[in-house]
Amino acid sequence: MYPKETGRVPNIVIARLPLYLRGVRQALEAAAECVTSTHLGEQASVPDTQVRKDLSHFGKLGQQGRGYPCVQLESTLRTILGLDRTWNVAVVGAGRLGRAIISYPDFTPEGFVIKAVFDSDRRRVNTVIHGIPVRPLSALPAAVRDSGLSIAIVTVPERVQDVVDTIVASGITAILNYAPVTAQAPSDIAIRRIDPILALQSLTYFLSHPSCDDRRRANAV
Amino acid sequence: MYPKETGRVPNIVIARLPLYLRGVRQALEAAAECVTSTHLGEQASVPDTQVRKDLSHFGKLGQQGRGYPCVQLESTLRTILGLDRTWNVAVVGAGRLGRAIISYPDFTPEGFVIKAVFDSDRRRVNTVIHGIPVRPLSALPAAVRDSGLSIAIVTVPERVQDVVDTIVASGITAILNYAPVTAQAPSDIAIRRIDPILALQSLTYFLSHPSCDDRRRANAV
Repeated sequence: MYPKETGRVPNIVIARLPLYLRGVRQALEAAAECVTSTHLGEQASVPDTQVRKDLSHFGKLGQQGRGYPCVQLESTLRTILGLDRTWNVAVVGAGRLGRAIISYPDFTPEGFVIKAVFDSDRRRVNTVIHGIPVRPLSALPAAVRDSGLSIAIVTVPERVQDVVDTIVASGITAILNYAPVTAQAPSDIAIRRIDPILALQSLTYFLSHPSCDDRRRANAV
Repeated sequence: MYPKETGRVPNIVIARLPLYLRGVRQALEAAAECVTSTHLGEQASVPDTQVRKDLSHFGKLGQQGRGYPCVQLESTLRTILGLDRTWNVAVVGAGRLGRAIISYPDFTPEGFVIKAVFDSDRRRVNTVIHGIPVRPLSALPAAVRDSGLSIAIVTVPERVQDVVDTIVASGITAILNYAPVTAQAPSDIAIRRIDPILALQSLTYFLSHPSCDDRRRANAV
């Protein structure tokens, strides 16, 4: 168990924890015993003071002047983030983007196992992608029950709200939305969105404000 | 011109502006004259008070009790974000992910024109993706000069820092990084990262903290 969290942890802090996890893993690969807040901050493009503040939400993890013991911090971050187990993932949408995601090599080593693929298009149903047969979306609720699916990755280009409603009704409570649409969901559903247009549209802010002295931090959110 | 920005605008605010732009466009499609901060907040999963605070960075854009005039707010947000022009984009990496991005239909309507594709793999050079020939990465600097490329989308799976160094040396100052690695760049380079592992790793936080009362806001960052 990691030390009790003190109060509500802001979402922006939670979004940085996976970056700190990468930083401590890098240090471990370099056989370091401890990792500094400066090194962790480079991963998330935040100053060392922010790292120390973020991690202080989870108790006293570091030692002044020494930094954070790597083995312990890695373990603590994994526990906090729920990464001390594997998670079964459903991909909804077997188009070009869905296929690219299903063949992405980094999910399984990180504990995210794509167990099932769904599509509403009959022409795609029963095709096989990377060994996984595409099933009709109507088969999702039974698959959630039978395969313990916890996370859905949505890659459909349209009817996104209908798809999200179906996912929520099936009992899945965490959704990664690649569709270029804000989907509404009950407050107990966690949704994250990956949308290159949104990312590009904030990059152009920096291109249009060349005097902005703080561009790098665009990396952090 | 839009009203002068008052002080430095936090990056998290800049990241929400494209979501507000979507909200006001929705209202325009519904032929609304004004849009409320509540409606804009739904897009970004933030409360109306946050919307008003965010937009107040750019002067007095709304009217109490009426909301924000749609036509004017849309135009102002486009100007702030630098979206009142088109931007030429290079894709570096012509693998599966690069190909999915190049064929993504929503870039051009939003003013992001993929002008050139680069890859270090000789077997991919001179193949054609969606009408765009793949060029060797060594051709990037000349292409930046000749085609006015402003933004690079990085989709290579490895040697990411080398690729980013090459992009920076070519004169491009805005990078969208799909590679699962934090790339270092000078402080005048804007980098945004799209990384499904990072997104999934913060979703699992919420799955592991089912009592967390604030899941939806995972959507906002």
